[in-house]
Amino acid sequence: MLLHLSTWQEVEAYLEHSQGIILPIGSTEQHGPTGLIGTDAICAEAVSGGVGDAVKAMVAPTISVGMALHHTAFPGTISLRPSTMIQVVGDYITCLVKAGFRKFYFINGHGGNVATLKAAFSETYIYLEDLQISDASLVQCHVANWFMCGSVYKLAHDLYGKEEGSHATPSEVALTQYIYPEVIKTAPLSPEVNKEGKIYGATDFRRRYPDGRMGSNPGLATPEHGKQFYDLAVKELSAGYLEFLNGT
Amino acid sequence: MLLHLSTWQEVEAYLEHSQGIILPIGSTEQHGPTGLIGTDAICAEAVSGGVGDAVKAMVAPTISVGMALHHTAFPGTISLRPSTMIQVVGDYITCLVKAGFRKFYFINGHGGNVATLKAAFSETYIYLEDLQISDASLVQCHVANWFMCGSVYKLAHDLYGKEEGSHATPSEVALTQYIYPEVIKTAPLSPEVNKEGKIYGATDFRRRYPDGRMGSNPGLATPEHGKQFYDLAVKELSAGYLEFLNGT
Amino acid sequence: MLLHLSTWQEVEAYLEHSQGIILPIGSTEQHGPTGLIGTDAICAEAVSGGVGDAVKAMVAPTISVGMALHHTAFPGTISLRPSTMIQVVGDYITCLVKAGFRKFYFINGHGGNVATLKAAFSETYIYLEDLQISDASLVQCHVANWFMCGSVYKLAHDLYGKEEGSHATPSEVALTQYIYPEVIKTAPLSPEVNKEGKIYGATDFRRRYPDGRMGSNPGLATPEHGKQFYDLAVKELSAGYLEFLNGT
Amino acid sequence: MLLHLSTWQEVEAYLEHSQGIILPIGSTEQHGPTGLIGTDAICAEAVSGGVGDAVKAMVAPTISVGMALHHTAFPGTISLRPSTMIQVVGDYITCLVKAGFRKFYFINGHGGNVATLKAAFSETYIYLEDLQISDASLVQCHVANWFMCGSVYKLAHDLYGKEEGSHATPSEVALTQYIYPEVIKTAPLSPEVNKEGKIYGATDFRRRYPDGRMGSNPGLATPEHGKQFYDLAVKELSAGYLEFLNGT
Amino acid sequence: MLLHLSTWQEVEAYLEHSQGIILPIGSTEQHGPTGLIGTDAICAEAVSGGVGDAVKAMVAPTISVGMALHHTAFPGTISLRPSTMIQVVGDYITCLVKAGFRKFYFINGHGGNVATLKAAFSETYIYLEDLQISDASLVQCHVANWFMCGSVYKLAHDLYGKEEGSHATPSEVALTQYIYPEVIKTAPLSPEVNKEGKIYGATDFRRRYPDGRMGSNPGLATPEHGKQFYDLAVKELSAGYLEFLNGT
Amino acid sequence: MLLHLSTWQEVEAYLEHSQGIILPIGSTEQHGPTGLIGTDAICAEAVSGGVGDAVKAMVAPTISVGMALHHTAFPGTISLRPSTMIQVVGDYITCLVKAGFRKFYFINGHGGNVATLKAAFSETYIYLEDLQISDASLVQCHVANWFMCGSVYKLAHDLYGKEEGSHATPSEVALTQYIYPEVIKTAPLSPEVNKEGKIYGATDFRRRYPDGRMGSNPGLATPEHGKQFYDLAVKELSAGYLEFLNGT
Ligand code: NI
Ligand code: NI
Ligand code: NI
Ligand code: NI
Ligand code: NI
Ligand code: NI
Repeated sequence: MLLHLSTWQEVEAYLEHSQGIILPIGSTEQHGPTGLIGTDAICAEAVSGGVGDAVKAMVAPTISVGMALHHTAFPGTISLRPSTMIQVVGDYITCLVKAGFRKFYFINGHGGNVATLKAAFSETYIYLEDLQISDASLVQCHVANWFMCGSVYKLAHDLYGKEEGSHATPSEVALTQYIYPEVIKTAPLSPEVNKEGKIYGATDFRRRYPDGRMGSNPGLATPEHGKQFYDLAVKELSAGYLEFLNGT
Repeated sequence: MLLHLSTWQEVEAYLEHSQGIILPIGSTEQHGPTGLIGTDAICAEAVSGGVGDAVKAMVAPTISVGMALHHTAFPGTISLRPSTMIQVVGDYITCLVKAGFRKFYFINGHGGNVATLKAAFSETYIYLEDLQISDASLVQCHVANWFMCGSVYKLAHDLYGKEEGSHATPSEVALTQYIYPEVIKTAPLSPEVNKEGKIYGATDFRRRYPDGRMGSNPGLATPEHGKQFYDLAVKELSAGYLEFLNGT
Repeated sequence: MLLHLSTWQEVEAYLEHSQGIILPIGSTEQHGPTGLIGTDAICAEAVSGGVGDAVKAMVAPTISVGMALHHTAFPGTISLRPSTMIQVVGDYITCLVKAGFRKFYFINGHGGNVATLKAAFSETYIYLEDLQISDASLVQCHVANWFMCGSVYKLAHDLYGKEEGSHATPSEVALTQYIYPEVIKTAPLSPEVNKEGKIYGATDFRRRYPDGRMGSNPGLATPEHGKQFYDLAVKELSAGYLEFLNGT
Repeated sequence: MLLHLSTWQEVEAYLEHSQGIILPIGSTEQHGPTGLIGTDAICAEAVSGGVGDAVKAMVAPTISVGMALHHTAFPGTISLRPSTMIQVVGDYITCLVKAGFRKFYFINGHGGNVATLKAAFSETYIYLEDLQISDASLVQCHVANWFMCGSVYKLAHDLYGKEEGSHATPSEVALTQYIYPEVIKTAPLSPEVNKEGKIYGATDFRRRYPDGRMGSNPGLATPEHGKQFYDLAVKELSAGYLEFLNGT
Repeated sequence: MLLHLSTWQEVEAYLEHSQGIILPIGSTEQHGPTGLIGTDAICAEAVSGGVGDAVKAMVAPTISVGMALHHTAFPGTISLRPSTMIQVVGDYITCLVKAGFRKFYFINGHGGNVATLKAAFSETYIYLEDLQISDASLVQCHVANWFMCGSVYKLAHDLYGKEEGSHATPSEVALTQYIYPEVIKTAPLSPEVNKEGKIYGATDFRRRYPDGRMGSNPGLATPEHGKQFYDLAVKELSAGYLEFLNGT
Repeated sequence: MLLHLSTWQEVEAYLEHSQGIILPIGSTEQHGPTGLIGTDAICAEAVSGGVGDAVKAMVAPTISVGMALHHTAFPGTISLRPSTMIQVVGDYITCLVKAGFRKFYFINGHGGNVATLKAAFSETYIYLEDLQISDASLVQCHVANWFMCGSVYKLAHDLYGKEEGSHATPSEVALTQYIYPEVIKTAPLSPEVNKEGKIYGATDFRRRYPDGRMGSNPGLATPEHGKQFYDLAVKELSAGYLEFLNGT
């Protein structure tokens, strides 16, 4: 169930049997010469939709802009500052907690979101407790990165080896190719790519990784790979959601 | 051109001939017994896509959660606080200004966003000037409500008269039916709906408008009407965008 | 009754029979070559005083600095950022709500305040509800612009036609002349004034409207006109206050 | 010169020969059974006007609501939180610095403002330096409490001895009686008043000082005393302003 | 008892018989050519430890970075902005209040902290009351400057006369020499030191006080003096703590 | 070199040959029945001091209160909210960057700090770039957790196996026993400890882990182990610091 395609009464009915919700979160940032700027949001949204179908869970609208400040020296990147994102995540959760939701499962498409998301969870827990909102101590948030699923990780390694790299990876590009086969991009990709994983500020990032990639060869991606990644991620995160939902 | 389906080099190329961008903004809020919670975001996104195609403009990812605090007593509503939304809009614009964009055309699907958007524009202009960002004084933001287009307004009046109401209106419901014909909802709609336009806090809102509608009869909506609204809005806002883009 | 000329016991007594309060809000900003920098605050304060007398309502101290960032390229302008003003308005209302006030009628002298005021109302409603302050759901805020009163608007049109313009207008200058006849200013006023209503950032504003006026001819103002405006505004807003106070 | 009764060109002309400005700041808070809620703002405004006349200095609009959180358990009190007030003072100064002002002389009527004002000055200095605003390092702020003038203090001691107390004092009440002889209040004043000077939170304050006074007997105040206080304060602060203006 | 050397059960046991806590607060800022950058924190921590032993009070970890923005033009200085420090102090107190502490005795080593600390206390009282935290109205905060103790002040005057000055004073340097005899610094000290007490922004401060001292001659300091200062401060503040703890 | 035991001229001299600084950061939080509340700060400070000596690096004062909101249901815990900590870390770095430091090596003693620290780094990089501070793009921050050193991790595994657990671990307790042998605590430790690693809000944490430990048996700790941990951490982090300092 997609929240944005439901009515409020349908949500009310849903809450009678479940207090869980899936929140897709991505990023709007450069993904190298052939990667879509929306890659992380597209992947998170697609996987979340698949999981939502599989486990009959409500899926919130995708947070398509996340914490990508280090990519902002490339045109097209949009990022929240961490302090903004903490407020955004807090506002989302607070509204949903008032409605009756208690278990928040963020399916995330961007490594750069993780730290700020975790900070936001901590800020939100105490905010809800301080407001003495009913059942505040039952609120639980979890971030699950689709690209860190064991099965996804293994497949990426099998398919691409070290050319998976760490940004604008063939695995995420493949997944977007599967979802949007009509917008597959091609561009010359220099084989020499800075592989170091260091990330500091935006200007430094562009100096260090001139075309935006970090050690990856997205030229290896295919839509067929993308389907495989999709299926694996949906399967693994569906299990993860149910475990989270039913756990203490 | 959709930003999220572009690469950063495509954005770079776009900026060589245009500094304008369209930003769809909606809301995630109850829309009565038959309206989708995502109505405002869905409409803004669809119309923005149409305008972007018509005028060859870049379209940013939709801001799907806006300022809807007064709807938060209904489950499923998610809202930013105004202070959060001011930061979000400021972060979006600041990133895009650094990339070279100067003209920001927000296509808006939710009346409740307007005040906070305008406040955000003011806050952002001075922030950019204070940072002494190059060309800060050339940055221009504009909010265009698709539902306030003269042609849209007239059609709604012709089709629905006073039953258009002011929230969960047949016109916006029709537009979502055109976009998502597969999720048209039906539910009994009491003809007696509070018509007063007063809006204060969330608890008061639900007391005042028990099923979420404000004076509207969305049962009149049809997908065919939706197409008409879509065409009118796209046409009128395409002209509006070009005028904004080319104006001083 | 002016709050600042009352004792706390008098306020306590007032609260036994009324929970309404009038809050004048203006701005401190350039008003062209002959308009007082305090025009908007002066007008709001004077009209509020008149209304307070007519309806026996408590009148708070004037908020004399508002949201006028777009005027800050002219010396003498002082403005709050919207995020500051949201906090200020929230602090005012929160204090008064704790004391027992529930109905907040802002009499406003500056168009630039409206968006931020409305954002502040939304932010404050949810803040009060979140704090679980007693009766939070009964708090109501309203902004009434004296210059938008139907009777005022009509008189301005009758007296000045298109020369009313939209900033440093003859109507508001006339009202200040009535209130402060001893400080009527004269200066050469070029008849050629940029009439476009566009407002973006501060530097842009001064470039666009070099002497500060927006399409207006304040040379038409007289103190006698000012008295007429005053009487009309007080009459219309007195009725407006009572309707607000007694409404649901 | 009062800023709000000036035009922007007059301010521009003023800045050619002086970069100093006086900012009256008071409070809107209970002042015992016979003191006006606006006492601190009224006194600061009156004294500032006198000083402005005496030294030909520009006087900004009065900041009539300050930091009076500890009085908020009494109806009629309005207070900013310190974090809000820091933003407000920063916004004022930043606007005026951009216009060319450099020396900010706050004439203060409320002891409770002092700490937050000083914090605001520190916050503002670094903000201006960080923005690399021209001449930021020349900006100087000073707070002068009219009630702490040596001459005022001595007169209060001579007239009232220990009955001056520390809140709702006869000296400040006398000054308001001189300014507003038409609103002199009378009420029974118990001679037994808690004299301890301790101030913590709002609820505690009201428990500790049930009628709002702190060790004072405002019944001793007369308008004639008020004139004496006014003259002394204006004289002493005029000298203080000039010393500040001309000092390094 | 030092909080950081206790277990949570020991704190729980302590709270059964006392709700008081001592919080040392200093600064990390230049202290002239021979003063340690940590002088203010070192002094506050040492004196707090002595007081804690004398009165069997819990002592919190030292806040070693305070409000020293005016010293930031000298390398090695670290300062919080006042708005940050207000949040920090609020977070400390809120956590401790939830645990059961009610009386907060800040032993302070830096004059520049006082204003912001007082602002923070005000902000925190209202925050706790707004959250409706149990016993919020019993929370009391007090700032005690060790260097302002009557006995300390008198000794400094007796030993150094006017050469005590107001920053990088021989008294505080002596105290650090007593605590850290192994890091006594020597450097040529020009006898000509700007004695004026004016403090504005950071750049101005360094221009005004080129080697960092304000009218002081720290060359007079000895470890033996330091011991005397220590003993006096501990004795006087021990009495002060008990009076605060047992007072209403 | 300890910053707080240096003079500003010594810092100035240091900056001529190095732009690196070590910042110890810990936490003030419950560590089970036998762990010191200051454990994380104590460990970080000790290890930082050792590293500073080994590599001749400047060491800043310890940030002894970090992000430990989930421990705040246990008395004695003090925590910053993430939004506060982001400001604190930003203020520290900004001051030090202005002085000339460029490489910030945080030696961390608390897993709960990591997410917020990383968020703070991102927020600070963009802040410095936006301010157009010279060399902003050269600023680099790194967080190194002493307890995650490979050699430390291996020793803990060898000594304690699964009884290392994840909070109030024998390894960290051992290190504090080595540093403070005079305050070794003993208390009965139930062998049955909840081992699950889930962390949500504060109330939930205490419900889940009643005595504060997470799967650990700190009764295994000895001061001799502590020395081993200390030596390993200092050695490994010294190498880490130099690599960071000399890296691009
Ligand atoms: Ni990605
Ligand atoms: Ni809608
Ligand atoms: Ni006006
Ligand atoms: Ni007063
Ligand atoms: Ni000092
Ligand atoms: Ni630990």
